[in-house]
Amino acid sequence: MIIVALDPPQNVDVEKWIKIRYDELKEYVQGFKIGVPAIIRVGLEGLSKIFKDYSGLLIADLKLADIGDVMALTASIVGDYGFNAVIAHAFVGYSQAVDELSKTCEKKGLKLILVVSMSHRGSEEFIDKHLESFVEIAKRVGSWGLVAPATRPLIIKRVRELIGSEVKILSPGIGVQGAEPGTAICYGADYEIVGRAITHSENVKQSALKIIENQKQRVAKCRG
Amino acid sequence: MIIVALDPPQNVDVEKWIKIRYDELKEYVQGFKIGVPAIIRVGLEGLSKIFKDYSGLLIADLKLADIGDVMALTASIVGDYGFNAVIAHAFVGYSQAVDELSKTCEKKGLKLILVVSMSHRGSEEFIDKHLESFVEIAKRVGSWGLVAPATRPLIIKRVRELIGSEVKILSPGIGVQGAEPGTAICYGADYEIVGRAITHSENVKQSALKIIENQKQRVAKCRG
Repeated sequence: MIIVALDPPQNVDVEKWIKIRYDELKEYVQGFKIGVPAIIRVGLEGLSKIFKDYSGLLIADLKLADIGDVMALTASIVGDYGFNAVIAHAFVGYSQAVDELSKTCEKKGLKLILVVSMSHRGSEEFIDKHLESFVEIAKRVGSWGLVAPATRPLIIKRVRELIGSEVKILSPGIGVQGAEPGTAICYGADYEIVGRAITHSENVKQSALKIIENQKQRVAKCRG
Repeated sequence: MIIVALDPPQNVDVEKWIKIRYDELKEYVQGFKIGVPAIIRVGLEGLSKIFKDYSGLLIADLKLADIGDVMALTASIVGDYGFNAVIAHAFVGYSQAVDELSKTCEKKGLKLILVVSMSHRGSEEFIDKHLESFVEIAKRVGSWGLVAPATRPLIIKRVRELIGSEVKILSPGIGVQGAEPGTAICYGADYEIVGRAITHSENVKQSALKIIENQKQRVAKCRG
């Protein structure tokens, strides 16, 4: 399963850029993830218009990392504009932080997705050291999903062992960042998040279909 | 010195709410800090109009915590809309994260402010354990400022010892969160960040002047 990260380059009409990709891809992928740059450039109203009829996953990738009431308020706002999932960091802790956020997500019917590891090198400096504690927080608040990087698949494997089978694992790092489609799923992820390899290609639909096919083949092989 | 955190409540006309408080307070305080909820509700264009003639500190408190290129792009965008400072987390690490962000901040003339400790209880779970390493990252990238909480003044004292006198310390937690005006400065902060105690009061100007006066008195005493 594929989630498309819509991270527009600078110097484009962002709203148009997103709408074109959404229209081309919505039938083939399971969801879209919108990051902070696109959210602050287009605004929530513009985004809510583009995605108003969408029934797939629509993730506000704000990487929330604030005190509880600020994160809760932010989640509540993006929920009002049609997002059905929100990404936050476990790093800010349970108490007066993820705890409060999770209650608001439950109230608003938002899927909470917690980052437990990231795809860049700096993730090893602090974040990865607390992997097990972050997964504990996710369990404690009943998080819908976790983010763990396709670039380091052994981390995905470990996270899957820790969290059990109910919680979704979303895995960025496929394509331009280096991981092959299917890798993360073979190691235990549910969704692979693909950005530029699809969105920045000349034919986004063709690129998506190719990645979906590659993903299927690799998964068939590793499960075979 | 005071920075006003403009965190509007739900169910208000956010743009108007911010504009009124900006007009009332701009002569008396050293800067304003706008958080994620207000940024995504008003949008950058609306905010840039309100603050277009302002020469004080204008901080985009996005608590950035993403991979380097996403944080750098975000900082670049808020810089284009008139913000002159941006808050990011040190916990995402130096490599491919704060390192890249700091280069963009330098290029765009943006003040980089790194969170090294937070005011909520959850900060003790993970963040505070890495305080010294976070301050090291701030030194390494030449961060303009650091965030450390007024609610735990001994942390401010420790951060000041570690960072030396050149780097600014900004301290939230004054007022509703429990710390008295002046406390953080007595322990080594440069700016106290005050939100609801000013912005949610009936007479915001009067409340601000009272807090400024209380701050002065306490500082005079502790330095006495």
